[in-house]
Amino acid sequence: MIEKNGDMLTVREDLKVFDCTIRDGGLVNNYHFTDEFVKAHYEMCVASGVDYMEIGKNVSPTVMDPKEYGKWNFCLEDDIRSVVGENNTNLKIATMADVGRTLKEEIPLASESVVDMIRVATYIHQIPEAIELIEDFHAKGYETTCNIMAISKSFDDELDRVLDQVCASNVDVIYIADSFGSFYPEQIKKLTAKYLTKANAAGKKIGIHAHNNLQLAYANTLEAMIYGTSYLDATVSGLGRGAGNCNLELLLGFLKNPKYKLTPVLKFIENYIVDLEKELDWGYSVPYMITGKLNEHPRPAMKARDEKDTKYVDFYNRMTEEYS
Amino acid sequence: MIEKNGDMLTVREDLKVFDCTIRDGGLVNNYHFTDEFVKAHYEMCVASGVDYMEIGKNVSPTVMDPKEYGKWNFCLEDDIRSVVGENNTNLKIATMADVGRTLKEEIPLASESVVDMIRVATYIHQIPEAIELIEDFHAKGYETTCNIMAISKSFDDELDRVLDQVCASNVDVIYIADSFGSFYPEQIKKLTAKYLTKANAAGKKIGIHAHNNLQLAYANTLEAMIYGTSYLDATVSGLGRGAGNCNLELLLGFLKNPKYKLTPVLKFIENYIVDLEKELDWGYSVPYMITGKLNEHPRPAMKARDEKDTKYVDFYNRMTEEYS
Repeated sequence: MIEKNGDMLTVREDLKVFDCTIRDGGLVNNYHFTDEFVKAHYEMCVASGVDYMEIGKNVSPTVMDPKEYGKWNFCLEDDIRSVVGENNTNLKIATMADVGRTLKEEIPLASESVVDMIRVATYIHQIPEAIELIEDFHAKGYETTCNIMAISKSFDDELDRVLDQVCASNVDVIYIADSFGSFYPEQIKKLTAKYLTKANAAGKKIGIHAHNNLQLAYANTLEAMIYGTSYLDATVSGLGRGAGNCNLELLLGFLKNPKYKLTPVLKFIENYIVDLEKELDWGYSVPYMITGKLNEHPRPAMKARDEKDTKYVDFYNRMTEEYS
Repeated sequence: MIEKNGDMLTVREDLKVFDCTIRDGGLVNNYHFTDEFVKAHYEMCVASGVDYMEIGKNVSPTVMDPKEYGKWNFCLEDDIRSVVGENNTNLKIATMADVGRTLKEEIPLASESVVDMIRVATYIHQIPEAIELIEDFHAKGYETTCNIMAISKSFDDELDRVLDQVCASNVDVIYIADSFGSFYPEQIKKLTAKYLTKANAAGKKIGIHAHNNLQLAYANTLEAMIYGTSYLDATVSGLGRGAGNCNLELLLGFLKNPKYKLTPVLKFIENYIVDLEKELDWGYSVPYMITGKLNEHPRPAMKARDEKDTKYVDFYNRMTEEYS
């Protein structure tokens, strides 16, 4: 049994709104955002009281090709500073490290960087390498998180073991990442109980990163929050891979802490997202609903959307073909 | 304290999936659906195992002008029969009566109609007239519901009194109607407890009709269901006024009763909704989010969408102007 932490009118001081628009949205356009867009987005984050902004990934340019991907896939220190300067604000800057794509040798000391936090995205089978990265970044002075992906595909006892390992590390925050957008609020509540029990015992916080395949990203974020999750991921207009994420404007519209302001987000949507929606495709649609419902990676749905394939019955039949 | 009724794998025999695509969707296009569309929709409902299909409103042609509104705003018996014939299927046919716009003298005996259920939509101040309609329809042999609208604007003690009055009538089902799309799952849970306590004592069922202003229509429908709501409203692709409703394809994708089939819904979406989306505007957008968050009627948001007005900050400022 897990108890609610506060009610609808409570200001929870432990809550952190974590904007990952540029990082998750970058998966939609291979990180080809204009400098103006990222700068305006940064200013929006500062003005709206958001606690963290994830400005991209810190993939090594030796691993992925800077000719193919925009600069926010690599997040070189100079590029970040060209947007945030010294970042003398209350907003913290984060980047995401992918296990196997980020080289710890390329990550400077926190004292030499404007980045405050590095989030390590990992699959269950990569946990030892994820922890190696976490310990390196922690030793360098960064806040760290461990975002365990695709847990809807893992067994309960595996997840327990992995959580124990992560809890024994120096990580600050452990994330429930609903990579396939397949979880229902009831399941999020159970996962929150599991994560929180272990995290509390280890003195760590937990976070939630939701996808909107079943139109439940916001509802799942609220459910996780209600039962004690502190770090809440959101993106402007849900901009993010596939069906997208929890909408920042919905989350800020709900939270009661007066430090959060909705107007800068609306301004950014009207100035930048209205146009972007004409160029890029993201958000709930039938193919994403199908992969979410089936607890599958959204890749085939992304392909269907790219090809403007609306043969939904064929798509569903292909996705549910039996193989034994 | 209210207990869950079943878990995620339970088949709940009391559940009824209620499709209101034509009726709520008709609010988007003044009921100008083609005969082919309504016929295909009816066949989809039959094939997918949906329990009820609401084919429109039974407004009197003496009250609203048949030149301005399509036939599904009036639901003449002959028009319904031209689509459903004698309806020798497991699907039940429903219409909606608006207090003040439906004349009970124009409603035939149930034995002379293919309509099985009439839902009475009412505001709190119209309850005596709503009950008059309910008793008339009940005496004529119809199943009836009472859909109490705009309850997010009413006081708790008013709602208690109204529920007592409705429970004392011969109505079969009492609906929680989230007219402004402003409720959160926590509030739906409390409302479900309130409605269910009174309804159970009176031997009645309860229903949920949600709107998607805060992207919570599906989540709220699930929440209501989990705690014992039996009648679940949904529309194909969420087609309905403003931000739309709970998506039928999401709901059928979740329910475990094998009588429900997803494929006919996907087929209908691919054949009819893909094109309709190019003509009509419905579904989540910033203006609807704002009216939902502010617990206001979506009318100003509908106007903004009609005018393709994306000055969201101005809209928000207008909606939050103080008046004292």
